[in-house]
Amino acid sequence: MRIIGGALLVSERPVIVSLQNQSVKDALKLKDRRKREETKTFLVEGYRECLRAWESSWKFEKLFFCPSLFLDVDKTILVESIKKTGAELIELAPHVFEKLSYRDRPDGFLGVAIEQKYSVEDLKKRWSKKEKEPVLLLAEAIEKPGNLGSILRSADAAGVDGIILCDERVDVFNPNVVRSSLGTLFSTLIVTLSIDAALDWLKKEKIDLVATSPDAKELYTATSLNGAIAIAMGSEKLGLSERCLKQADKTVYIPMLGRADSLNVAAAATLMLFEVVRQRGVST
Amino acid sequence: MRIIGGALLVSERPVIVSLQNQSVKDALKLKDRRKREETKTFLVEGYRECLRAWESSWKFEKLFFCPSLFLDVDKTILVESIKKTGAELIELAPHVFEKLSYRDRPDGFLGVAIEQKYSVEDLKKRWSKKEKEPVLLLAEAIEKPGNLGSILRSADAAGVDGIILCDERVDVFNPNVVRSSLGTLFSTLIVTLSIDAALDWLKKEKIDLVATSPDAKELYTATSLNGAIAIAMGSEKLGLSERCLKQADKTVYIPMLGRADSLNVAAAATLMLFEVVRQRGVST
Repeated sequence: MRIIGGALLVSERPVIVSLQNQSVKDALKLKDRRKREETKTFLVEGYRECLRAWESSWKFEKLFFCPSLFLDVDKTILVESIKKTGAELIELAPHVFEKLSYRDRPDGFLGVAIEQKYSVEDLKKRWSKKEKEPVLLLAEAIEKPGNLGSILRSADAAGVDGIILCDERVDVFNPNVVRSSLGTLFSTLIVTLSIDAALDWLKKEKIDLVATSPDAKELYTATSLNGAIAIAMGSEKLGLSERCLKQADKTVYIPMLGRADSLNVAAAATLMLFEVVRQRGVST
Repeated sequence: MRIIGGALLVSERPVIVSLQNQSVKDALKLKDRRKREETKTFLVEGYRECLRAWESSWKFEKLFFCPSLFLDVDKTILVESIKKTGAELIELAPHVFEKLSYRDRPDGFLGVAIEQKYSVEDLKKRWSKKEKEPVLLLAEAIEKPGNLGSILRSADAAGVDGIILCDERVDVFNPNVVRSSLGTLFSTLIVTLSIDAALDWLKKEKIDLVATSPDAKELYTATSLNGAIAIAMGSEKLGLSERCLKQADKTVYIPMLGRADSLNVAAAATLMLFEVVRQRGVST
């Protein structure tokens, strides 16, 4: 056991100094979606992101760490905590860690986490415990990791009860989604479904689908967003699918007072979700 | 003059087939901020973006175009229109255009535009023509091109009277800002200033500075955002500077109902700007 900066270091293993190490090579492959889907594991980089995953009881298969990159020594507590959940700890030399990292300034934490998938039953169970009407977000065919991450971050901030991802163009375990969500994906209940299955389920559960469209007659701030609802957001290029627009129980518009005819999808999602918060009152 | 798909093509010059062409080499250098600042020119890629620049009377030094990449032949009208403003037209072979392009799917339009800079006097002139109190956005030290572009797009949609960019980490003429703003930067009056100069000017003009802070006591939707105001947004990592927070006439918070302690900066800017729209009524 080594002592660094006064803190006991958890690892008793040798420090990996070679990029040819099999665990390092396997982890590098997880930047590829197919490899993530095959192994049901994904990369979680960063102290804050690993902390959020651990706090929300996600399991790690491995944790790569590099104490000399830690922003302060107290960070070793999280290494210990993640070890206790059954993860293998692998200490890397800085040059190896930097190769594995997908950040400009790595902070010495990179976990291989185990995918956790939820069903619509989990979603139902979660809100049936609360005494309030559910607010869901349905995101259809989002293409850019930065947008999906930002949507997850806003959904967390607006306290949504769950997210339904339909026809995923980018998977939620993409490293850039994990990053731009700031790890909020770990505390949010996310279900992936086809758009058809999602629409059928919402109908069955009597959850009103709320769509935004430039052709709508009703202003989003002048329309009641109470009751059980799912706010629908479509892809960057095409917006919502025809099928989704047709089934919408309410269709509203966001005013466009300038030259552009639409907002960025994450900006629009944020506006709609916080309009729900405004109408229901912050304490709900 | 050649005829393509029934439309007269504007160029009578030879098609450039070499990457060694001096105009192509010069344009490639404009991906670098220093070169943009030195030449006071920048790249505008894409039909929609070039159209927005032309509609807002921005001048082009050159227009690179490639008819075989156009999404339809009617696009040649814009080539003609830009030529009439004095721009040199340079037709490129597809492989040369693709090398110059910074997009995955180039659409055959890439202009070299001339920077247009505004002062606070221009800003004042613009709103004194309207019979309403100005709404400005002050963005301090934004770091990511995608965020700055998204902020510009939301500011356009919310009909702001102008944007003050302080302590620019990313310049507004960065190709990714042009792109993610969807060209709305051309129709928005943008002034760049130091934060000190901006704060002094706002005070002098009696424009209330509105800051968001997690420590604020007042909810953003429960605070009057009427009168002459500037909504302030700080950098991704550090938020607003101490100086800016101190001078704020109003400080409000956006509720955070989940795990994360903040929203993405473009998401927060959108919420604040559209809260102003909501409070003033859409018709203003």
